[in-house]
Amino acid sequence: MSDDRYMMLALSLGRRGQGRVWPNPAVGCVIVGNGRILGRGWTQDGGRPHAETEALAQAGEAARGAVAYVTLEPCAHHGKTPPCAQALIDAGVARVVVAVADSDTRVDGKGVEMLRAAGIEVTVGVCETEARADHAGFFIRNETGRPFLTLKLATSFDGRIATGSGESQWITGPDARRAVHAMRSRHDAVLVGGGTARKDDPSLTVRDMGVDHQPVRVVVSRRLDLPLMGKLARTAKEIPLVLCHGTDADATLVNTWRDLGAEMLTCSVRGAQLDPVDILRQLGSYGLTRVFCEGGGALAASLLEADQVDELVGFTAGLVIGAEGLPGIGALGVSKLAQAPSFDLKSTQAMGKDILHIWTRR
Amino acid sequence: MSDDRYMMLALSLGRRGQGRVWPNPAVGCVIVGNGRILGRGWTQDGGRPHAETEALAQAGEAARGAVAYVTLEPCAHHGKTPPCAQALIDAGVARVVVAVADSDTRVDGKGVEMLRAAGIEVTVGVCETEARADHAGFFIRNETGRPFLTLKLATSFDGRIATGSGESQWITGPDARRAVHAMRSRHDAVLVGGGTARKDDPSLTVRDMGVDHQPVRVVVSRRLDLPLMGKLARTAKEIPLVLCHGTDADATLVNTWRDLGAEMLTCSVRGAQLDPVDILRQLGSYGLTRVFCEGGGALAASLLEADQVDELVGFTAGLVIGAEGLPGIGALGVSKLAQAPSFDLKSTQAMGKDILHIWTRR
Repeated sequence: MSDDRYMMLALSLGRRGQGRVWPNPAVGCVIVGNGRILGRGWTQDGGRPHAETEALAQAGEAARGAVAYVTLEPCAHHGKTPPCAQALIDAGVARVVVAVADSDTRVDGKGVEMLRAAGIEVTVGVCETEARADHAGFFIRNETGRPFLTLKLATSFDGRIATGSGESQWITGPDARRAVHAMRSRHDAVLVGGGTARKDDPSLTVRDMGVDHQPVRVVVSRRLDLPLMGKLARTAKEIPLVLCHGTDADATLVNTWRDLGAEMLTCSVRGAQLDPVDILRQLGSYGLTRVFCEGGGALAASLLEADQVDELVGFTAGLVIGAEGLPGIGALGVSKLAQAPSFDLKSTQAMGKDILHIWTRR
Repeated sequence: MSDDRYMMLALSLGRRGQGRVWPNPAVGCVIVGNGRILGRGWTQDGGRPHAETEALAQAGEAARGAVAYVTLEPCAHHGKTPPCAQALIDAGVARVVVAVADSDTRVDGKGVEMLRAAGIEVTVGVCETEARADHAGFFIRNETGRPFLTLKLATSFDGRIATGSGESQWITGPDARRAVHAMRSRHDAVLVGGGTARKDDPSLTVRDMGVDHQPVRVVVSRRLDLPLMGKLARTAKEIPLVLCHGTDADATLVNTWRDLGAEMLTCSVRGAQLDPVDILRQLGSYGLTRVFCEGGGALAASLLEADQVDELVGFTAGLVIGAEGLPGIGALGVSKLAQAPSFDLKSTQAMGKDILHIWTRR
């Protein structure tokens, strides 16, 4: 097998950690000797052990003289664990293939340097595009402080998320809803606006996926006017709940929610709303690397307008609601097409009776 | 090759006539003898010669003892040409394979009867589903008086066809626009509302497709308040233009447009609009079997509300216009999801930088 094939395997292993390892990157590692796979590892829940440690432990003594495929440059700094670059040296691997260099200032080339200084052959850049996409949340947070943001919209053929009377369950079918739960589970957090939390009383959990891990639930609500008896309030002690509120939110409400178990993030106010840039900055500081926003229309519009959306996920159903229906994206202030937020097509496919189409930042 | 394979070939030949043979069906025919294709024919422009005549002429004497594959039951009545069933008998074919029986009361089983009476073996129902889809316009018009209606919508990711300030060119890219021209050419007519005709001054022609044939242009305008100096008016003598107007349209305007070369169809008024059911009935009486509606939002909504849409064609672009944008489908009066017009997914695919998704009547 070629380097590419082993690296694709390492990438697919790494993806198992997505949504479960923040603020760490979800790395994958494969150890290969004499054409045989000796060890497979991925970053474990919470961020450690790291992928290399796992794979090396599996390979044991056989790692000596073998090749290690790692989806991100091995770390070179002493954190809570010794650096992975040192672990690879100690294990005696002959060659390390790295998909992409780490932009973390604590690593940034030092991992590769350390390996080379120990006489190990190092190749960097195998499946780099795929690795950059997989680690996009980690990279963006390192470089800009905010997490990677996916915006999901499940609408009728004509882009509506509810009828004029507010009925929204269900526009898309069970396959689309199942796909949404799978997507939630691969993100660190699910994000909705306060209007959605009030109207739908959602639990925002991952269900029926055989997944024991729940993403953080994040609700944006300037004044914290959220139901204190709703599902989110009732489950805040069991499943992480983060509330982004304004500097002007009522202090008693802030305390009440904190007592209920919620993590409170104070965000700056811009106009009548929370500043979307500050919301994401706060979520980044909190440690989140991949956030999955599910609306509503006002929050979606404010994130798009502030150019904070990295991936757009559309589920479109074969029913038509008409112009009285609730639009999936609120007012954007776009009068010229040239100003409209634009995305490149990544993929489209049937998803049960609906379609799924994914677009990425241009 | 099996019957299915030959019939698929006949179907693909028949499709060459779509948009060019109305009010006749676009039939395909293949003559096969000893495993060799001896003749291939399809309904010619304007509806004759028929497919069987063409294919038999190609096969000549070799047709004797051969098998004829026809996508629709051969006609049995003397019209402007002698019946095709008789032509097949005269040619001495041994067997006729028919995809689907004809529901035209002048044929309705008589074609098959005539062949069998002459001692020819007849098989009916090979690729019937595909043939029913291809001949849907012909069947629907025979059975209900109206043509098959395709509704096309090219929108932003959020279902908008223009910005709030009215800018609409171009939301979708060149590949999508080219696909629209190909679709136009396979329909008998292109249909738009008066608002679109006023706003865009469209020519509604098929361009850059190497097609010499133009579909009929149909504009719906209750009061005929359309630009008399626009592209449609200027080209009405060269390319067929049909105007559907209300019983209350100004008689002088009706005459002016007739003098400009337009065909005038008087339709009944329902509420403030033309009755969509009567519009389609009138277009059916005019002879059209396949109509391609391209909006605008009000006409699209009235056709959907009246349950006149057979196929929904969506082109979706990767840009977001927001809630101030013009909705692709107007008000529908849907308050419960159960009332929303619903369609089944037929296909989805990338079309250049956009996606194309096609849905059919449930």
